[in-house]
Parts: sequence; structure tokens; C-alpha cells
Amino acid sequence: MKFGIVAFPSKTVQDFANSYRKRYDPHYALITPHMTLKGVFEADDQEIKTIAAKVADVASSQKPFTLKTTGISSFAPVTNAIYFKVEATNELLSLHKKLADVDYKDSEQYAFVPHITIAQKLTSSEHDDIYPQLKMIGASFEEIIDRIHLLYQLEDGSWTVHETFRLSGK
Amino acid sequence: MKFGIVAFPSKTVQDFANSYRKRYDPHYALITPHMTLKGVFEADDQEIKTIAAKVADVASSQKPFTLKTTGISSFAPVTNAIYFKVEATNELLSLHKKLADVDYKDSEQYAFVPHITIAQKLTSSEHDDIYPQLKMIGASFEEIIDRIHLLYQLEDGSWTVHETFRLSGK
Repeated sequence: MKFGIVAFPSKTVQDFANSYRKRYDPHYALITPHMTLKGVFEADDQEIKTIAAKVADVASSQKPFTLKTTGISSFAPVTNAIYFKVEATNELLSLHKKLADVDYKDSEQYAFVPHITIAQKLTSSEHDDIYPQLKMIGASFEEIIDRIHLLYQLEDGSWTVHETFRLSGK
Repeated sequence: MKFGIVAFPSKTVQDFANSYRKRYDPHYALITPHMTLKGVFEADDQEIKTIAAKVADVASSQKPFTLKTTGISSFAPVTNAIYFKVEATNELLSLHKKLADVDYKDSEQYAFVPHITIAQKLTSSEHDDIYPQLKMIGASFEEIIDRIHLLYQLEDGSWTVHETFRLSGK
């Protein structure tokens, strides 16, 4: 089964992100707006119990963190994806590192660029058309995130929650 | 903000439900297959903290329950919705009752008929066409559910998880 770990921003930020995703993100219906903390990994029923217990340990050692979006950016030319840029604070990097250190079967391939995707799988001309507009509108939000979520993927590509973990460290 | 409380069945059951929902349920993209334990209610940021704490109390007093689907049924002629019928065991009724007794602003309007919707908002002729076929195929699953989820709704109608509660009672 495929799993991933995410943080969901507040309803306000999700609604704003969805106003773009509805038009520009083919994953719009598969998952609500989120910041990925650990990308897709495989685990069976037994493995996920061990992993979930370790993620619970990480969550109980971490304080809630500030999620601050500082504007809109793009992964082009690597991939034509546009996103809300999330400030890479020390507390967020620490949370990501601890989650990455949990034993998964795969290894993380990318550097951690915290973000909330609002558009993806665009053609280059679509990208070049909408990116300057979105960039001008911007996205300035600041809020406290006090929980993370372990999700799993169904056969149709949609994501269901497996478990929530409160960031309850002092 | 709008909230609800659900249990998600296993991936196997969700995938099977989605094979129908994809075609017959306009809510397909808004939420993955689920059994509603407490229907939609309104709460603000403060109220939901109190409610979530009470739901946590309920969950910690309840044991995991058996979710057994015994076939396919329909709410017609009240509404043209078709669903996996879930056995109303004492443990499930007890969980539902305790959740219903938490203080919400609204009151529950319907009797509790545990189910997993697979088709809804059908015309009568669509309903009468597909219901006998689905009924013949059936849905026999039995599994243990050890957690429930508090969800909230975004402006576009989709549902995001707020919190998971383990049924940790002895």
C-alpha cells in the first residue's frame, strides 16, 4: 500500500489554494491542499504499524510549527508545477529531518522544498501564461500547525487518512 | 465550519465501493468511501476544541468494532441512494449513541442506519435500473475498525481530516 505524510493548512489557506487547483491541478479531486512532509512510500500492514509508532514518537517530540507562505513560486523547468512557497524555518526542517529518518523501504530522492502545490502537469505555454499572474497575486499566510497526518492511497489515486499525530512536544 | 465524524473501511472495501461510486455517486471526488457516525454539524474554532475533546473521551472508552457489510440496500423511495448495508451490532450502536450524546448545536434528524453509500442523486429510472444488478453482486466484508475520524468541509464541498481518534477502550 502507498503512504505519505502531510500537513494540511487551515481551511482559509486550503480554500484559497483550491480556487487555483480547481482549474490548474489534475490532483484537485484526489487530495485536499497540503504540504508534503514525507513523499510516497510503500508499506504493508505490519510495516505501517512500526512506521506509525515511530512517527508518533517524532510528533510527540516536536512542537507545533509556524507555517508561513511567502509568495508563489514554480519548479519549472524541472517540472511545470506552481506552488505556495513555505518558509523553511528551523522547526520545519527539524520535523522533516526526523520524519525522513524513520525507516522506510525507499529513500527520499529530492531536497526538501516546503510548498503547497496549486498547479501541476501544465504545458510550458500554460505555465508561462499563468505563472506571472499568480505570482503577482501572491500568497501571504501565517498560521500554527499542530498536527500531521499519515495518509494512504486508494487504487483510484485518492488519499484517505490513516492517522493524525499531534505535535505535542514542549 | 462544517464537521462530521466517520469511519473509513479498509482499502479493499474502499476500492470496491469506489468502483461503483466513480460512476454513480456525485460525491465521489469530495470524500473517500466511509460510514458516517455523526452527520454534518456546525462548529467554530473554539467549539470544535470542546467537541474534539469529548469525542476523544468517547473513543478512549470504546473498543474497536467489527464492521460487517451484509449486502446492498437502498433508501428509495425516501432518497435514491444505494449503499453497502452495515450490520447494526450493539458495539456500533453504542459508539453511535455516545457520539450523538456529545453536545452539538444541531440535533440528529435521522434514525441511525449504518451504511456506506455507493450511489446517490440518481433519477428513479437510473436507480431502478442499477439497483437489482448491484443487489445481485452483493458486498460481504467483515473487518475490525479501530479508529474514527473528525473531518471538516472546505468551500468546494471536499472533506479534510481534522483529527483521528483510536478506539482504545478495553
